[in-house]
Amino acid sequence: MTNKAIGIKDVAAAAGVSVTTVSHVLNDVAYARVGTETRERVQEVARRLGYGPNRLAQALRTQRSGMIGFISEEIATTPHAGRIILGAEETARAHGYNIMIINAASTGSVDTREQDVAALLDRQVDGVLYATMYHRKLSVPKNLTGLPAVLVDSEDISQAVCSVIPDEEGGARAAVQTLIDAGHTRIGMINNTDDVPATHSRLTAFKKTLADAGLPFHPELVQSEHSEVIGGYEAAVRLLSPGSRPTAVFCYNDRMAMGAYRAAGELGLHIPADLSIVGFDNQQLIAENLYPGLTTVALPHYEMGAWATRNLIAAIEGKTDLTLFAAHPTVLPCPMVLRDSVASPKPKGASSRAAPDSATRANA
Amino acid sequence: MTNKAIGIKDVAAAAGVSVTTVSHVLNDVAYARVGTETRERVQEVARRLGYGPNRLAQALRTQRSGMIGFISEEIATTPHAGRIILGAEETARAHGYNIMIINAASTGSVDTREQDVAALLDRQVDGVLYATMYHRKLSVPKNLTGLPAVLVDSEDISQAVCSVIPDEEGGARAAVQTLIDAGHTRIGMINNTDDVPATHSRLTAFKKTLADAGLPFHPELVQSEHSEVIGGYEAAVRLLSPGSRPTAVFCYNDRMAMGAYRAAGELGLHIPADLSIVGFDNQQLIAENLYPGLTTVALPHYEMGAWATRNLIAAIEGKTDLTLFAAHPTVLPCPMVLRDSVASPKPKGASSRAAPDSATRANA
Repeated sequence: MTNKAIGIKDVAAAAGVSVTTVSHVLNDVAYARVGTETRERVQEVARRLGYGPNRLAQALRTQRSGMIGFISEEIATTPHAGRIILGAEETARAHGYNIMIINAASTGSVDTREQDVAALLDRQVDGVLYATMYHRKLSVPKNLTGLPAVLVDSEDISQAVCSVIPDEEGGARAAVQTLIDAGHTRIGMINNTDDVPATHSRLTAFKKTLADAGLPFHPELVQSEHSEVIGGYEAAVRLLSPGSRPTAVFCYNDRMAMGAYRAAGELGLHIPADLSIVGFDNQQLIAENLYPGLTTVALPHYEMGAWATRNLIAAIEGKTDLTLFAAHPTVLPCPMVLRDSVASPKPKGASSRAAPDSATRANA
Repeated sequence: MTNKAIGIKDVAAAAGVSVTTVSHVLNDVAYARVGTETRERVQEVARRLGYGPNRLAQALRTQRSGMIGFISEEIATTPHAGRIILGAEETARAHGYNIMIINAASTGSVDTREQDVAALLDRQVDGVLYATMYHRKLSVPKNLTGLPAVLVDSEDISQAVCSVIPDEEGGARAAVQTLIDAGHTRIGMINNTDDVPATHSRLTAFKKTLADAGLPFHPELVQSEHSEVIGGYEAAVRLLSPGSRPTAVFCYNDRMAMGAYRAAGELGLHIPADLSIVGFDNQQLIAENLYPGLTTVALPHYEMGAWATRNLIAAIEGKTDLTLFAAHPTVLPCPMVLRDSVASPKPKGASSRAAPDSATRANA
């Protein structure tokens, strides 16, 4: 694909040096004695003529391709994938590596995943990043073991492969603490029904944070549904029924929070005056665009991609041993993103009042 | 990275054939006479032992790497990127190619873009896909010309590089026609203010579709703002002020439609009973999760990725000449996605009535 009309002889002629000198400069041969000025001239001419050292030949010689394989689930269906890829890509590039991406179908069998790894190995990648699109435990493809490899956003059940995951519990604790700090004492939670680590760790964090603040836990203030907008709506309708409702709600994710906004609107509750809401994920399309903007917890997708790539490259270059990290996942923090959905609760006895905007009726 | 303990001799011994036969089978040598049964046995043994033909050596011989470079803007900030990548990746894989992705910063200069192309060439890619994350005209990097290359979702100003784009105008016409077919005669448009092809072609389509239906165009029924949720809200507040407002609105994109939903809610207008809305983009996180679900127009991101890859591979393999397509972009259709935001307008004289849910007041 490089300009095939241009050969090493053309570079040598244009630079006024021998073919051997060009070869030594472009292949960065350590023992060759080439002056700085000549070296720079050869490089400049080669660049101008579009003649580069042949990476394939170089790779065969060094046994390193400079390529990192990236196996990702569901690139297409989640905005999270992009942030992981970006973190990996920018880090790889800064170290002179490139990323080759294979999109694994989430429905793929174990066999399919082994085939994905095999395809990358066949391409002579130096190492493999294996990313899932939400935090979970998985059985890694057998042929991943023994390679330089890092799991991103998942944990290896067999603890053989190094992994990096978000600090679910720390993020959830910060979210609940934000509500407590605003003065709320009757706080509800809208949780997911799936059996994934986040479901359990966010509930655990919710309970612990209440306990640490000396607040009682009311099981009836936890409502669980499918972790989508409609599930959040249905859970919120139950949670917010008049009588004993909470003044603040911690939602499993931003999509469920979006559903809670709708339920609050239908019940005439204003956010944050009548109800404070905190989400999780910082899914920007939702969190930034809800009205008012949603206070939530960010998942460190970019940071996980960057951490995984940095450590993978260190392992490829013999500077670290990833198996030292394999027994325990590395946990990265989940920072709070403050917007406008949290306020102090109303003093007791104050009554809710219709805001002018929702009371306005206009003729069609 | 392949199992270095396993050599061609091991495969030959395990399969009970000569090293030459293994080489012929695995390298798919055309003139070699190897029976089907032997061929299958060798392949099975090689697979079982984890011994593959060395792709790097193969590439040096055939001058083809089986790798397609993918330069993408803003992978991280748009969910569209994923669908283009998925279309490209699945198509490439079906043809035995892999995708190598470089994420180009949207703020990159022309020099930066040339460096991205150079990095891919240095990796010996067979061809380049260059994807932008919204449809626009661009000056392609100089070193892209002359390569097998396809632009995805953008047009080359110099008309030298083949490109595939969405049928903006057709999609917009279908959107407006959907409102006309429902019986609306007073239709507004919320448009973008950016000088990009979609801004102009969607407005042109809006006017033409009204004209074809014999409906007058009222310039005051087009309101333009920044193409985000808040812009859609502000444009909708102006458009929906009482007096002469439209019964239906065509929105530049789903984000602006989300803003229009909020404005309608504040004005006490129910969708679709009081106001029908159609969006553009089928940005699922929004379109599926608004209440009611947003009827909108899908952009063919997957299809553009697949088309570009299919034709790029055909060019790489000498089966087509992409310059034949360069003068005019290939245009792919934008299908309607029907949800629940369009209904027939109320008969004249019928008055809007507060729905029970928004009238309910609950005590905090």
